[in-house]
Amino acid sequence: MKVELVSNILDANTAIAEQNRQLFARKGVFVLNLMSAPGAGKTTILEKTIETLGDQLRVGVVEGDICTTRDAERIAAHGIPVVQINTDGACHLDANMILRSVQNLPLNELDLLVIENVGNLVCPAEFDLGEDLKAMVISVTEGNDKPTKYPLMFRESRAILVNKLDLQPYTDFSLDVLGKDLAELNPQAKVFPVSAKTGEGIAEWCQWLVDTVMVKNQSPK
Amino acid sequence: MKVELVSNILDANTAIAEQNRQLFARKGVFVLNLMSAPGAGKTTILEKTIETLGDQLRVGVVEGDICTTRDAERIAAHGIPVVQINTDGACHLDANMILRSVQNLPLNELDLLVIENVGNLVCPAEFDLGEDLKAMVISVTEGNDKPTKYPLMFRESRAILVNKLDLQPYTDFSLDVLGKDLAELNPQAKVFPVSAKTGEGIAEWCQWLVDTVMVKNQSPK
Repeated sequence: MKVELVSNILDANTAIAEQNRQLFARKGVFVLNLMSAPGAGKTTILEKTIETLGDQLRVGVVEGDICTTRDAERIAAHGIPVVQINTDGACHLDANMILRSVQNLPLNELDLLVIENVGNLVCPAEFDLGEDLKAMVISVTEGNDKPTKYPLMFRESRAILVNKLDLQPYTDFSLDVLGKDLAELNPQAKVFPVSAKTGEGIAEWCQWLVDTVMVKNQSPK
Repeated sequence: MKVELVSNILDANTAIAEQNRQLFARKGVFVLNLMSAPGAGKTTILEKTIETLGDQLRVGVVEGDICTTRDAERIAAHGIPVVQINTDGACHLDANMILRSVQNLPLNELDLLVIENVGNLVCPAEFDLGEDLKAMVISVTEGNDKPTKYPLMFRESRAILVNKLDLQPYTDFSLDVLGKDLAELNPQAKVFPVSAKTGEGIAEWCQWLVDTVMVKNQSPK
């Protein structure tokens, strides 16, 4: 009973996600679903990414939070289109929230839509939003045990940003250990060690993102 | 439909939580539900707490994780009774998981049962487990915006441990700002600034915990 319920919810979500995917393809916009635990630094990374991309890509953002419009305000300060979803307690974004929110974005004028998911290392990874790319952030202060303890998100993400490198000297986090765990869980994942604070590694991440978007967004608008 | 569903699940959970609460009262064991985002340091704080309590309280632990037995192994190394719950993807513990797992613990011989919840700043706060006390950990590296962005857990917790104080000089986290947000959300909350790494503040937290347990556990075994 419980299992069937969950599967129905996920089936309904998958159907709407497919609808989103077709909409994004028609509009020629590449969609990135950015996930992490709370406080890993998604919004700061996104701000640095927007600055670094400059006019290479026209970026829009959907901000997912349980409440407040703080993150959307931070993004709006960069002068790009943003909508805020407040989930009102729900622990993840779903495809229907995305379908409704993107009505308020000028999709025809975007190359890249970034969906910043609710800060949660568990549930967001289960819900297809119709995105082209799932990426996640893990910060070095969270510890090396996270990939084995929360494997789904690490398995589903094509890119993994390891943030707060500036704090690494004060922690026992090891990139080698992360690499070994990912060799088991997700050997294809691209790993980007970054510090959103100092800017280290952001250029490499942005270059990869531009290349990935360009490969997909061939269709003229 | 969706709302009714959630409310049914929560109603069913509340009924079992009440059953747990009566069981714990009969056994004279005080139950602490310890919550946080992933990587905030719950397990390390718990290890330091066990060491500091020494023989002041007889402690048992329920470890909640999506998968792996890593945390239970860390706790078992301290020579105290522990059971591991693997939620197999679920993002929180519920009352039924607790009811089943405590069958494997010598409740008659415990003063304090600590339930370490799944690392998640959202969902665990919604589920009553039958505990006497909800406490949470926020680490300074997670940032000052967490109470307003994830208010439920901050509202529900009687004690809030602010961990990784040793890293505070390298972040812009402010205890004053936290205090102001809590004045709105939860003015009664006891705040304990700690560093599980250096041990700073752990004695104060343990003393408060012993006092709180003693007030409740009057009944002879």
